[in-house]
Order: sequence, then structure tokens, then C-alpha cells
Amino acid sequence: MILTVTPSPAIDHTWTVDHLVPGESHRVLHAFERAGGKGINVARALRGAGHDVLALATRGGETGRHLAANLHADGLPHVLLPVSAPTRRTMTLVSGEYFEATVFNGPGGPILPGERTNLMSTISSLASRARAVGISGSLPPGFGPDELAESVSDVVASGTPVVVDTSGPGIIAAARAGATVLKPNRVELMEATGTSDLRDAARELLYLGADLVLVSLGSDGLTLAKRSLDGMLLIHARLPRPVIGNATGAGDAAVAATLVSLALGVDAESSLEDLASLARAATAWSASAVLMPYAGDLSPDREELARGVELTVETVREPS
Amino acid sequence: MILTVTPSPAIDHTWTVDHLVPGESHRVLHAFERAGGKGINVARALRGAGHDVLALATRGGETGRHLAANLHADGLPHVLLPVSAPTRRTMTLVSGEYFEATVFNGPGGPILPGERTNLMSTISSLASRARAVGISGSLPPGFGPDELAESVSDVVASGTPVVVDTSGPGIIAAARAGATVLKPNRVELMEATGTSDLRDAARELLYLGADLVLVSLGSDGLTLAKRSLDGMLLIHARLPRPVIGNATGAGDAAVAATLVSLALGVDAESSLEDLASLARAATAWSASAVLMPYAGDLSPDREELARGVELTVETVREPS
Repeated sequence: MILTVTPSPAIDHTWTVDHLVPGESHRVLHAFERAGGKGINVARALRGAGHDVLALATRGGETGRHLAANLHADGLPHVLLPVSAPTRRTMTLVSGEYFEATVFNGPGGPILPGERTNLMSTISSLASRARAVGISGSLPPGFGPDELAESVSDVVASGTPVVVDTSGPGIIAAARAGATVLKPNRVELMEATGTSDLRDAARELLYLGADLVLVSLGSDGLTLAKRSLDGMLLIHARLPRPVIGNATGAGDAAVAATLVSLALGVDAESSLEDLASLARAATAWSASAVLMPYAGDLSPDREELARGVELTVETVREPS
Repeated sequence: MILTVTPSPAIDHTWTVDHLVPGESHRVLHAFERAGGKGINVARALRGAGHDVLALATRGGETGRHLAANLHADGLPHVLLPVSAPTRRTMTLVSGEYFEATVFNGPGGPILPGERTNLMSTISSLASRARAVGISGSLPPGFGPDELAESVSDVVASGTPVVVDTSGPGIIAAARAGATVLKPNRVELMEATGTSDLRDAARELLYLGADLVLVSLGSDGLTLAKRSLDGMLLIHARLPRPVIGNATGAGDAAVAATLVSLALGVDAESSLEDLASLARAATAWSASAVLMPYAGDLSPDREELARGVELTVETVREPS
């Protein structure tokens, strides 16, 4: 079983309108809503690809009830820990000829001390039965970088690999805690490290303690970085032509593919071939998510996409 | 008891953002959601003003469950008839220095034949115990102008006054069915009658069969029209200075005030003084709704606002 953890899940709404004009009244042509948040999207992608998965998240209020009902209806195995703050919502307005997305992230509430204890002990307990763990998304007040780091240390110490996909100080904390893989996008990587050079930023996270850093680069594919004996090894992966579609959930699909590789035993000490396979799969899964209208779904042509992925290996020697 | 009927209720979301920029990602500063739809707003206004009220509406799906939970939590007496289509949502994005409102009306589903029968017989049954009935909002597929007309005829025949606030062909159907009061706004009045002149349009609805026509005019107040022996009597009501705020729910407040007057026995045959009081109260309640951030709420200064309302009486002779 692969465990995904979503400290701040959401009900994601996607509404389609003809044209978005501020100040006007709009008829919504199509409305879609379902349980979301990065970790839940990761779980959906894994389940869609036929893997045994368990989604751990919090739930609060009316939206939390809705979250539970939706996961139940979709048959996605889940454990939802009750919290007092209502589960947040997000809204994506899709408009115009090019399906422009305008995104609104609803406010989320804090996790109270007792709820935090429950969340952290449940992560430990479920992780001990998991082959890999992904912790994804924003960190709510009350489950911040320190708590993330404690959970990461705990899971890694028990021998289970952990992928962390978050932003801000949580990235640094997870690196220090020895996360198996960090999956920032380019902006998150730069914001977390204060470094605009991808290589410098990846090196920093590796030297803080991360085993692998997987940087998602949108239509430019992704870069997987690991320490080597005399510096750093980088595997760049991309499709010859970027696919066009809804990029929401592409990073979650990359995390899902990575978790599958980790569950099969791939780690920073694996052969170049195995690491290249991980980068190839993550790129293909990302692209297959872009081809689908809603985050968490994968198109069926992942194998074909994977065959088209172009890989480049780069070694960076430590400045002496 | 005053009965309000909402064939197409909604969960209304109001989200505040700094600036609304299409294509960008926004942090929502404040999110509010509650049961809405015009008839439910009317019921809230009546209850807020201390009147005995019952809100009849439909409910379907997860949003229908949310609707029920919200009405229950707010202590608003309600009867919700189950329907298979999920209750719709609306979203109002409030942005910028002047609280510009950008509105999105989510799609609603149809009312099926069995559900329609249940709705129409419940309207009849509850109306027989009501002192006045308000039917408000858009008509969903399956409860169209014909069904509205049948319900209006039925209630009027039993001696209970009915206010109808809808748009499109429903206005004409309700006039023909002999509605006690029609409450279109200026645009709805013009669209329904195809007449750009307020007096001509009001006359048309009166001659089709409505007892009274109350046209809400936004910051210009409102006009109450009735047939007279040799033509038409118009009462124009307005505040000396329009109030500034959120106009959503202003029309619903006017309907609520009208229902209170009808429940006290005011009708088209009442004295000019009583009809002027109705117009004064409707204007004041509208303004007091504008002063509140959410539809269905009234500010406490209705009495003071009512004292400031300026009334003008106009008689229009029938062209000979």
C-alpha cells in the first residue's frame, strides 16, 4: 500500500463560463466538484493506475462531510481525521477559447494541538504498513514545517521512503529531516532556497539532507538530482513536444509515479537506469495528467508518452 | 404564517479577493456560504423582522444536504422537498476598493414529473395555512410558467394573496393567473413585456390580470402600479439619497415587506394611504438590505429609512 497524506485537503470546484468579465453576472455552463488537495490527487492518480493506495487527510465541517462522501462515492480508500476547522474550498473558473484558468484558493483553518497529535501519530501508524509515503500540499497553521519534519524523520527512520511536495519553509524542513524525494516546481524551489539557479538550489536541498530532488518544470519536463561522489548527478527528462491541456495536477502525477518507483525499491543508491526510469515515468505521468480536464486523472496513454521521453544525464562536479 | 416558495434554491458563496485578475491565482481573504435563492432570502428577511415564516424549497444531492443543514443551523423554519437533481450553487466574487461583485450562477437541474406533483400539492397545502405566499426566483426545467400559473391560480382561488418575483415568461403567466403582486425589476419587466416604457409595461401586466405591479428600480427606488377606474395609479417611492452597498437581496427585501402588508390585509382595493405604506416599507426594507453584506439580512434602521422615503402619486388616464 502507498500512503498519501494531505494535511489541508479541499473541495475543488471547476466551473466553465463563456468569458470572464469582472463586475458582470455569468451563467455557468458546466460545474464539477470533487475532493481534492494535492495528496488526494496523488492518491487518485495511483488508484487510476491500478495501485493499492490509502489517502490520509483531515476533514472538518460541512465541506469535510462532503469530502468524505465524495471519496466514498469514488471508492478511493481513505482515512479522514476530524478537525474543528471546516475543510477549505478551491474554485477554478475556466473561460474563453483557450480554457484560461482563474484560480481562487479558499481560506483554510488551523489544526489544533490535539488534532495535530492525532494526525502525526496516524501518519506514523499507517506509514509502518506502507511501502512508500507521499506528503503533499500546503501546510495549515498548526501543522507547520516543524511537524512536517518530525513526521518525515519518523517515517524515514522506520525504513519507509517519503516524497514531500510542499512549498516555502516546509521544503527546507523536509530536506533537513532527510526526505527521500522533494518535489518542488521551479518557483517553489527558488522561493524556498532563495537561489535562482536550479543546480545551486537542488544542491542545497541535497546537502541539507534530501536523498533526491525532483524539480518539475512544466512544459520543460523535469530534472531529477542526486548527490554523487564528487558532486551532483542530474537527469533531465522532457517530451519532444509539450502536451497542451490543464496543468493542474501534473505535479501530483509526477509524485504518484515517483511513489510507485520508491515502492519498488528505487532509491538514491539505485542504478542510473532505475533513476532514469523514475524520471521517465514521472514525466509521462505528468503529461498524461495535463491531457485530462481534472486534477487526479491520468490519460490512458502513459506508456506511449513514456517511450517518447527524452533523457539527458549531466554530472556537476563540486567546485573545488 | 407567511409562506415563501423557492423552486430553485441554491448554496450561495461569497468570496472576497483583493483584485480579480482573469488567468491568475487568487488567495481568498474571506469566504462565506449559506442557503440562498430569492425565496429563502425573503424568508430570512421576514424572520429577521420578527415575522412567522415558513420557507418551502427543493433539495437535492450533497448541496441539498448542505442547504438543509444551513437552514437548520440558522433556525429558519423550512420544508424541503427531495428532488433528484443536485441543488445548484452561486458564487459572488467581491473584489477591489469598491467591492465590485462578479457573479456566477451555477447550473440547476430539472424537477421530474413526480417531484413537480409533490411541489405543487405542497404549495397548495401549506398556502391554505398561510396569510400570504411569495414565490421567488428562477423557474427550473419541470416547474415552468404553466406550473407557476397553476399554483398561483390555486392559491389566489383559496383567498390567499400571492407575490411572484421571477423573470421571463413566468411573469406573464403569473399575471394571467391573477397574481396579487408581481415584483419584476426594470430589466425583467422590459424583457417580459417587450416594452421599454415602464408605464406601458406595468399596464400590460395589470390588464393581463395582476392586481398590483411593484417595479424595483435600484437606487431610483420603486414604483407600485394598480388599475384605477379610468386608467392606472402609480406610486413612486424613493430615498432622497440612495444608500451604498451590496444590492443583492434588495428585491427580496421588497418582496418581504410586501408580504407583510398583504398578510395585514392590504390589497389593490385598499386606500391610497395603505398602498403608500406598502411602497414606503418596500423601499425602506430594500435599502436596509443594501446596507448589509449578505442577501437576506436587513439592517436595524428600517423605521428610520422608511420615514425618509419620498412618495409621489401619479394617475395615468387610459388613452381614449
